[in-house]
Amino acid sequence: MAEDTLDLLVERLQAGCLARGLTVVTAESCTGGLIAKLITDVAGSSGYFKGGAVSYADAAKTALLGVPAEQLAAHGAVSAQVARAMALGAMERLEADVAVAVTGVSGPGGGSAAKPVGLTYIAAADSGGVEIRRLVWSGNRSANREATARAAIMLLLERVESMIGPSEAGPEDAIDRGRESGSDARP
Amino acid sequence: MAEDTLDLLVERLQAGCLARGLTVVTAESCTGGLIAKLITDVAGSSGYFKGGAVSYADAAKTALLGVPAEQLAAHGAVSAQVARAMALGAMERLEADVAVAVTGVSGPGGGSAAKPVGLTYIAAADSGGVEIRRLVWSGNRSANREATARAAIMLLLERVESMIGPSEAGPEDAIDRGRESGSDARP
Repeated sequence: MAEDTLDLLVERLQAGCLARGLTVVTAESCTGGLIAKLITDVAGSSGYFKGGAVSYADAAKTALLGVPAEQLAAHGAVSAQVARAMALGAMERLEADVAVAVTGVSGPGGGSAAKPVGLTYIAAADSGGVEIRRLVWSGNRSANREATARAAIMLLLERVESMIGPSEAGPEDAIDRGRESGSDARP
Repeated sequence: MAEDTLDLLVERLQAGCLARGLTVVTAESCTGGLIAKLITDVAGSSGYFKGGAVSYADAAKTALLGVPAEQLAAHGAVSAQVARAMALGAMERLEADVAVAVTGVSGPGGGSAAKPVGLTYIAAADSGGVEIRRLVWSGNRSANREATARAAIMLLLERVESMIGPSEAGPEDAIDRGRESGSDARP
């Protein structure tokens, strides 16, 4: 999957969502709309993609996604906490099944010793919870943005392909899933 | 200007906004994030670009930009009224000086006799009011999206380059502008 072109990954995401009846939304900071652009490059994307926020400035993260200003002040925009809040905010405000959020330092400016250029957090949220990945890229601005978009789409794809969509799930599936995910289950 | 590359237009937009101390936001339907992506391709864009909404589904236009559901039902998503409401919603919610909004039928699906593939409305809003353009493209999905992005950036650029930014305006400018813009002024 890592070698597939971005186009192919997006087409697979679209097919996976349409088959399961799942909707997707995005919340982008450092990629600035690139992920949504890639998703909507494909005809038929309106069948599963509802939209997203390009929350570039901190104020936009609060206005569009409800990220608390206190959280931005405490952890900084490039943090696991803010990535998580962005993903949850997008999922809830846009009433979607799955959301992906990215926040990072694309460069060339904006880096620091604690948060160097290339540092990126990606969060995916769905009804099962939130998964967060921390990545550090070493390319230029353009390469870092594209690497982030690819990683976000791959994370979305993994979540979607592991899910049983509302259009597929029946009572038996629900029971099976309940058994597997029990935190203190022993065979 | 029509022959300039998109990169050059965006760089000119950035220079024009930074010189005037103006902030910009976007509200995109058919372009799905392409305009924000082009703006943030340029390093330093965080100096004037606050973010935007990719309001692909009707519900996202309401949730992210406050476009009234009644307006969507009455005029359809691809209409001058909705383009106007998207631009005003983005400008107000994100507290920006200038907003641009686009809504159109990119194709290949979604066209009708009344609203054919290629029909696109672009609206720019600032404190001086809202300017709306109706365009009909004849390309494929990709070409229509790029043509819309280019037209939106050109409209933004025209508005910005005609404005006196907060950082430039002085009392004398204000008086001059008052004289010039009087609707019944005669020399």
